[in-house]
Amino acid sequence: MSAERPIAFTRGVPADESYPFEAIAECAAAAVGGAHRLRVQQYGPSGGFPPLREWLAERHEVAPEQVIVANGSLQLIDLLAWALLERGDTVFVESPTYDRTLTLLRRHGATIVGIPMEADGPDTDALEAALARHRPKLFYTIADFQNPSGATVSLAKRRRIVELAGRHGFRVLEDAPYRPLRYRGSQVTSLVELDGERTVHMSSFTKQISPGVRVGYAIGEKALVARVAKFAEDTYITPSLLGEATVFEFCRRGLLEPQLERLRALYRPRLEAACEAMRRHFPGCEWIEPDGGFFLSVSLPNGVTNEALRARAAERGLALSDGRGFFPNPEDGDRFLRLPFCALTPADIDEGVARLATVVRGLAS
Amino acid sequence: MSAERPIAFTRGVPADESYPFEAIAECAAAAVGGAHRLRVQQYGPSGGFPPLREWLAERHEVAPEQVIVANGSLQLIDLLAWALLERGDTVFVESPTYDRTLTLLRRHGATIVGIPMEADGPDTDALEAALARHRPKLFYTIADFQNPSGATVSLAKRRRIVELAGRHGFRVLEDAPYRPLRYRGSQVTSLVELDGERTVHMSSFTKQISPGVRVGYAIGEKALVARVAKFAEDTYITPSLLGEATVFEFCRRGLLEPQLERLRALYRPRLEAACEAMRRHFPGCEWIEPDGGFFLSVSLPNGVTNEALRARAAERGLALSDGRGFFPNPEDGDRFLRLPFCALTPADIDEGVARLATVVRGLAS
Repeated sequence: MSAERPIAFTRGVPADESYPFEAIAECAAAAVGGAHRLRVQQYGPSGGFPPLREWLAERHEVAPEQVIVANGSLQLIDLLAWALLERGDTVFVESPTYDRTLTLLRRHGATIVGIPMEADGPDTDALEAALARHRPKLFYTIADFQNPSGATVSLAKRRRIVELAGRHGFRVLEDAPYRPLRYRGSQVTSLVELDGERTVHMSSFTKQISPGVRVGYAIGEKALVARVAKFAEDTYITPSLLGEATVFEFCRRGLLEPQLERLRALYRPRLEAACEAMRRHFPGCEWIEPDGGFFLSVSLPNGVTNEALRARAAERGLALSDGRGFFPNPEDGDRFLRLPFCALTPADIDEGVARLATVVRGLAS
Repeated sequence: MSAERPIAFTRGVPADESYPFEAIAECAAAAVGGAHRLRVQQYGPSGGFPPLREWLAERHEVAPEQVIVANGSLQLIDLLAWALLERGDTVFVESPTYDRTLTLLRRHGATIVGIPMEADGPDTDALEAALARHRPKLFYTIADFQNPSGATVSLAKRRRIVELAGRHGFRVLEDAPYRPLRYRGSQVTSLVELDGERTVHMSSFTKQISPGVRVGYAIGEKALVARVAKFAEDTYITPSLLGEATVFEFCRRGLLEPQLERLRALYRPRLEAACEAMRRHFPGCEWIEPDGGFFLSVSLPNGVTNEALRARAAERGLALSDGRGFFPNPEDGDRFLRLPFCALTPADIDEGVARLATVVRGLAS
């Protein structure tokens, strides 16, 4: 037990103060009581609430049949795995990557190959080398402000990835929940914009509105989307139309852009506080400085492993994630630390990073 | 094309006029704006919205840890399959049974064995004989007003099923979405009441409130529920808390019982109209007369098959489901016809059954 106030650098969740409660309540009531009220209550298409599909199609400049809306985007990875993978098929992922995707891919019996992550995205030379040894069905990438590293894939690497996808015949699964949350700099062209045929683009309203609405979506070519929608129908018949109609109402009323602006204004100072704290307390340490999203990541000094660090940090009131969970080969994550910064105040971030630096120095010396 | 007004005996969906729109809208707004507002928007436990779990636990006289709430009950079958089945494992089902369960079990690589259904439930002698040849992990039963047959399992057969489950070491999956919709007679003790250790009991608010809220639940022993909740977390992190909190608010306000009374009052005359029409238009025909739920079923006369019937019926404006889809061995359903009656008015039911009888007579002669 620590006498110091607890600071959790664990789950990457939105800040409690980010939720537009009143607007969501009004939109939910309007969704259930309004013109679409029968469509919201009755069974509907497994691809999602049609007005929201249409709204998203317009936003992404695709046809509505290219959009599927589901109960959060993680579930779409499960459905895509059913639609695309046989047991034993190979999937490439960034190493590290989102731990829950690894869990789902393992569940589906995929052979997972990790491509080492660098500050500007996956090592594309390593990707090309791996393609000499494997024939992946899929390359899974979180190209913007990656969970867990915080890295954004450069435009050059994105071009190389889609070029290799075309040459070697694999699909790209671009998981982009953090893309609307850029706090500085300018957007890099998305992979789906570079190659709309080979890329499935996923996003979610979890980080844009709230996890509670439970609405994620994917965009891809029509035949694949139809196939995924069939698996969705066989799994849950109809997604949560109450949540989807609420989100549609929120978007229709023009509330999404102001909400994103509010989020960026809330999270930007937290990113700045985190970077400033890293520079002040961890001089000379290797870490990835993000331009958006929820996370930055640190390479711990030689000799400092996750296991020892988490035990010591707990004594100082710090909760840390085990970095190994983000790696296809867990031992590759022995010295990897993810720091989520959005659900903490700037003061807590500074205090937490300062304590962390003390613990790390104690272990390294 | 038919000049007659179209009548659809296809999907078993609630009647459009059954939905309590105003109450759901008020409950949704209260769920999102009320005391639980932060819990509803933030990530939460994968087992579902805690107040709803507690409410259901009290209703079913079990511990909250024995309840898992999910995005509809079909999804729980998928999660249970992950939690309980290896590919190649054997599952017993009633023959016929719910077609979507068959699809999910096939997806999970299960070996499916059908136990013939009789008017009072599965043939338990056939069940015992099958147990001499197979070691099932699970017996899936819809014991009340079965989809698709309309049959209810007698108390004697329920006792025999749990006795065999104990002796042969399989679990019983009791899918009971229609159980609260009994229109006459008295309830038969549920399988979970007979054996709470071996039985997983599933139900849903789809037929009690609406499909749109997308809330189903399962009750079982704690270790299994915890295992299913872990698969739920790995699949979608958190279920739709917006829907679950809306349902909780609906239940907390005491609206569920009056809603069920309204549903029974709405559907009872439809059941009576369907039975009356069967007696009038199909004298001498073999059919199962239900006491609740959404369906009755007919054994077509010798020589009348689903395929021919559906084509001719369409000429008379009748849409019919293919009975073969409900059978583990599709050819066993050649002469099986499911008739859902809840989403049709008594007048349409009578007219539809009359037309159907004419078509059947035309084919049989």
